[in-house]
This record gives sequence, C-alpha cells and structure tokens, in this order.
Amino acid sequence: MANITLAEARRWDKQDSLRDFRAAFRLPPGVIYLDGNSLGPLPRATPSGLDAVVRQEWGNGLIRSWQDAGWIDAPRRVGGKIARLIGAAEDEVVVADSTSVNLFKLLAAALRLRPKARRKILIEAGGFPTDRHVADGLAALLPDLEVVAVEASALAESLDAATSVLLLCDVHYRSGARHDMAALTRAAHAVGALAIWDLSHSAGAVPVDLHAAGADMAVGCGYKYLNGGPGAPAFLFVARHLQAHARSPLQGWIGHAAPFGFSEFYAPADGVVRFLAGTPGVLGLAALECGVDLMLVADAAAVWEKSARLFDLFALRVAARCRALRLLTPAHARQRGSHIAFQHEAAEATMAALIAAGVIGDFRPPDLLRFGLTPLYTRYQDIWRAVEVMAGIVGQ
Amino acid sequence: MANITLAEARRWDKQDSLRDFRAAFRLPPGVIYLDGNSLGPLPRATPSGLDAVVRQEWGNGLIRSWQDAGWIDAPRRVGGKIARLIGAAEDEVVVADSTSVNLFKLLAAALRLRPKARRKILIEAGGFPTDRHVADGLAALLPDLEVVAVEASALAESLDAATSVLLLCDVHYRSGARHDMAALTRAAHAVGALAIWDLSHSAGAVPVDLHAAGADMAVGCGYKYLNGGPGAPAFLFVARHLQAHARSPLQGWIGHAAPFGFSEFYAPADGVVRFLAGTPGVLGLAALECGVDLMLVADAAAVWEKSARLFDLFALRVAARCRALRLLTPAHARQRGSHIAFQHEAAEATMAALIAAGVIGDFRPPDLLRFGLTPLYTRYQDIWRAVEVMAGIVGQ
Repeated sequence: MANITLAEARRWDKQDSLRDFRAAFRLPPGVIYLDGNSLGPLPRATPSGLDAVVRQEWGNGLIRSWQDAGWIDAPRRVGGKIARLIGAAEDEVVVADSTSVNLFKLLAAALRLRPKARRKILIEAGGFPTDRHVADGLAALLPDLEVVAVEASALAESLDAATSVLLLCDVHYRSGARHDMAALTRAAHAVGALAIWDLSHSAGAVPVDLHAAGADMAVGCGYKYLNGGPGAPAFLFVARHLQAHARSPLQGWIGHAAPFGFSEFYAPADGVVRFLAGTPGVLGLAALECGVDLMLVADAAAVWEKSARLFDLFALRVAARCRALRLLTPAHARQRGSHIAFQHEAAEATMAALIAAGVIGDFRPPDLLRFGLTPLYTRYQDIWRAVEVMAGIVGQ
Repeated sequence: MANITLAEARRWDKQDSLRDFRAAFRLPPGVIYLDGNSLGPLPRATPSGLDAVVRQEWGNGLIRSWQDAGWIDAPRRVGGKIARLIGAAEDEVVVADSTSVNLFKLLAAALRLRPKARRKILIEAGGFPTDRHVADGLAALLPDLEVVAVEASALAESLDAATSVLLLCDVHYRSGARHDMAALTRAAHAVGALAIWDLSHSAGAVPVDLHAAGADMAVGCGYKYLNGGPGAPAFLFVARHLQAHARSPLQGWIGHAAPFGFSEFYAPADGVVRFLAGTPGVLGLAALECGVDLMLVADAAAVWEKSARLFDLFALRVAARCRALRLLTPAHARQRGSHIAFQHEAAEATMAALIAAGVIGDFRPPDLLRFGLTPLYTRYQDIWRAVEVMAGIVGQ
C-alpha cells in the first residue's frame, strides 16, 4: 500500500461501496477536508431542512409548532436516532445542551447513585481537558470530592472502594487511542463504581456498543462525526435500569414530569427525559437531525472498514513520503478511533502551510498534526494527495 | 378609549412611529399573534442571515470559520448587543446555554461570593417555576442550602443575615406584575446578600437598567421579546466588579483563559466569558443576533410607550366587551411588564377557541388567559379585533 499510485487510489474510490455518500455533502472546491472530527461538513440536505423549520414551522406555525411540528419531542426523537449509532435503546438517549453541561449532569447524578463515602472520580491523565474541567468544577462545588488522574495503563488498578465514577473518553482526542470499553466498565463495576463514557470522538465513526459494554452513562458531541453543524447540541445516555433513581442537578421545566403544568415544585419526568433542563434549541436540533439521518443510512460496518483502510493508506504513505513525521496513533484498528495523529517538531507551521494549500486538518499543541478519517466523504485519492502536499511542506 | 372604534384604532396605527417595524417580521396571514412573550415571530432578515451562516460560513468556511467568521466571539458579540437593551456594559453580558443552565451557574457563583454561613436563597412564592426548580436542584446538591419562598409583599422583610441570594423575576410570568428592581436590590445589599434577576419576561420589552438598579447578576431568554427563534440561546449578566472572583461551577473549554491551549487544568478566562462552558451553538446564536439587531434599531422609549397604550386599549375594550374576564395585571404601567393577563373560569377552552379563530395567546393553568403586547409588530387594530373575537367566544 506504501507504493500505491494515485491511479490505484482512484480505482479504490470507484469500488468503494460508500462512494455515493460524498455527493450528500457540500464540500468546497479545492479543499481536502480532514477535520470532520472537529467540525463535520455541511450535508446537502441541511440548508433546506433548516430553512423549512425556520420559514414554515417558526414563521407560519409560531408557538403552535411546539406541538404541531413536534419541537417538544425533538430531544427524544433525535436522541432515539443517535441511540441506534451507539448500541443504546431509543429511550436511553436525549439530545440537550453541550457535552460539558451534559457531563456535569451525569457526573453529579452518578455520584448520588453511589454511597456517599465514595468520593473519587477516576479519569485518564492527559485525557480530554474539558472533561477534566467539568469534573474539577463539580469537585470545587461539592465537599470532599476528589478527581484523580492516572495514566491509561494504570486505570484498572486505580479503581478501588473509594471510586464513585470512572470517567473516560472512548477515543483519545490526541493520539486516537481507544480504550477497551467493556473491560474497563467491568473493572469499574467490580469495585462498585459507575462508568461514564465520552463518545465525542467515536459516535458516528467507530463501532460503539454501549449495551454490550454494560456502560452506565455516556455523553457525546453532535458537531463532529455526526455532522450536526457548528456548536450542535450534544447527547447523553443513561442506561434504562439507572433512570428511575438518577437525578439531574440541573432541574428545568423541560425535564419536569408535567412541563406545561407550571407546578411550583419539581417532579422529574419518567425516563431519560428528566435530564433535559431548559428549552431545547430547535434550530440546532433540526440541523443535527439532518446529519444524523444521513449517518443512519450508511452501513456502519462499511464505514468502519473504510476508516481502517483510509488510516492504513495514510500511515503507509506518510512513512514512505514524510519521514520526519512520527505516527502517534495505534496501528491496530481495534485500538484506535477514526483519526490519525503525527508528531512533528514544526507541527504548527506545517498545519498552517497545509491549510493554506487546501488540506485542512488540526494542529494540537505542542507538536501534533491531527487528521480526521471520515469515510462518507473522504476518498482514498484525497488521502493520497494530502500526503503529497504534506511531503512538499515537511520534505521527505 | 373604551368606546374606540376600529377606524380610530386604525388611525392610531397610521400615526404610530413604530409602524414600519411590522414589515420587518414575517407574520402569517389570518393570525393576530399575541404570544411574542412566549415565542417571538420570525424577523424577515433571519432566514437569509441564517442561510448565509449555514452555506457560506459552515459549508465553505468549515472549521476555519471559528476564527474567520467570528464564531468564537459570537457569545460576547451578541451578549454585548443585548447589554445595550438592559442597561449593562458590553463586557458584562454573554450569550450561552439556556436560561435554566445560566441561572444554575450564577446561583452557584453567587453563593461562593458570600460567606459560607449564609445558606438561604430567597425567592418569590408562585414565581417562575423553572427558576425555583433550578434553585431547588442546586439545594439538593449542596449541603444545608435552603430555598425560601415568600409572597411578593414579604420579600423585603424576609431578607436577613442568613440570606445569600435574592433571586427574582423582574416581571411575573403570570400576572405581569413588576418588581421594583432598584429597591429590592438595595434591600438585598443592605443585609449583605446579592440580587440575581431573571429578565426573561422583560428584556426587549420593558425598560431595564441593571446598572441603575445596582443588580449583581441577571439571566434572560432569547426567544421571547428578543425574537431569537425557538429555543434560542439565553444570556447572562455579571456586574463587572464581581467578575474577577465569580466562578462558574460549569467549567468548560470555551470559558478557559486559553481555549485552544488544551491545558489539563482549568484557568477561567478574564471577565464574563468565564461563564461560558461548552461549544457555542452557532446556528442559534446567528438567529438570535438577527432578532437582537432588529430590536436595537427601535427606540426603546417608543416601544415601552406603545406597550402601555396597547395595554390600556386591551384592558378597556375587555372591560367594555368581555365582562366575564377579570384583569390580573396591575393597571399602572410602572408596575407591570409587557403582557396582559385575565382570569376566566373557562380559560383553557376560551384560549383554544381563540387560537382556532386565529388569535394566538397563551393559556396558563388553572384559569389564566395571557397575551403578549409586542409593539414592533402588534397594531392597535389587532388588539381591537382580538377583543371582538374574544367577546364572540366568552359573551359580553
């Protein structure tokens, strides 16, 4: 694969069972977009879908659309669709707020489900910073709560009788390394802790099966692999058997058992809907639903298979053409997500030059080049060309 | 005014200095919309404004638009515009999350700014339920925190040395009664408490001057009088002198001093921006900005003056034509917001019949008919006609 020619890469594209999905996105000419793991591109169906919500449902329907156009059910409806992508049941997922806010809700809820003496949240050192910020923020609020960060290799052994919650990102935002969700969840349960998974860098890209893993709770992002648009609302998952006793600290009217009853006192709705708080952002939900609908049409196994092949092509072409780059992402597909990361001492300048040349990836400080592998719209020939452009910048 | 004819009402409309604003909204034919206090109608500029963000900024700009299109600054930029509507400085307001989530942040932050021994949040009994739900949710999380609800008339005397925060809605969501923000804030300060104001039912409609009132913190809603669209993001205000020590419990990457530094540890940004948490919802912000821009063009004094006159016309015509209705809203303009509420034993059926006849207001259980008075697009003749339709339903 290292010596593959552009013509061969193009032949792979012709044989690709997902090739027709590319036309479902509006990609600007002259750009090779390898940043769909930060912000997915615009699905062609989204502008008209959103415009219909704006002009017809808002403009003509006005307040009536909360019922008539199903706005009130949108968090459940779109959540139910996302559930199918992550191995959850439809009544276990809702769309709401941001990933950070949802994580705060779930962490606080999980702590309450465990004995009060357990005051440790275990996280991965060097994991997604905003998840740690959320945990630290909760710890600053509550007495005696401790956030303990350890290296990935020490996670299992660091679970103990004081651990309340194990909070992890499924896929590491830098390296792309993937945890064994089932094994770590089992290890958490073995000491009586709950496991919360942040699926931001996996949902819509990587095979995720929350039920098979026995996961307790999860959050995830709408604007990366789900192509929901900039700042799309996030989602959250609470396993059905935990829902009746799980309480969100963010109590708002939409999570009330009778949201239009205007009772002075809060009574949580049945099920995962109790984790809603304020009024759902209808426009963001509408755009997200367009992205999710597109993802649901694709064969998830084919998506993951192509991701792995895009990765191999990228890694081998870089090894052949850009020897100054060091691959950070695990080589085995089972151990990684759907992006590829390289270390390079001049990573920031290199990424700036790449973007100027129309190859869009991410720089992550201090020395990381990160590229999203998004099979619905990324072709083998794009990877081939991107590596050639990079070789012209960093030298062979 | 009670005996005004339709022709006279129309003459008032012709003389109305705000009459041209009606054309800036897309109002469906055959509808008299008196529910802009629940969901503002669609400004004509919004669909194309939003479409440009979607097609050009997202579609063509992709991830680059966080910088190139100013997405990253949108919470501050739109917040700064809203500041001008509520008597705040531009660097005291940001747009973020929902009103409920923002209130949670501010309540927790305010509690930390007061001595720990103060464990009382004082609210109005029968006030906006979701605000109480938020306070109760925080109280369930934190030790010894107490939410005390008293009648409006007993608020000032219930402030004491144990009070940490006085939390009130500026305008009551049912009656439309308005508090004296300056006097109650002074009373809170006199006992060493902070005052947080929920402006959801006043921002964009009623004269609000947070600086003149000495308010400490405030939240408010984007989708009511600001015409920001269904579930538009909300805003929050923190007085400048409190910002350096105020800490949000919801710590996310966008509130970090260096959001693109990806530091493992949280350091709050300078200023009110530290109250941001997760990734801003760009589409919701874009629609909200269209609504706010329109409001900024209008003369606020003229808006309030017309609101008062719409109210008087409504109240007097109802007194003349619908005697079964009892006015609940204070008659004096200084004591009320920009909606009008009537009690009627068959309120629910009456509102259903009104809506079926094209007059859209709100029913609030158990017995309330509520109508928003929104001077930018509501005409005197609309009020006149609405009362006639109501007279046909409830009898004279």
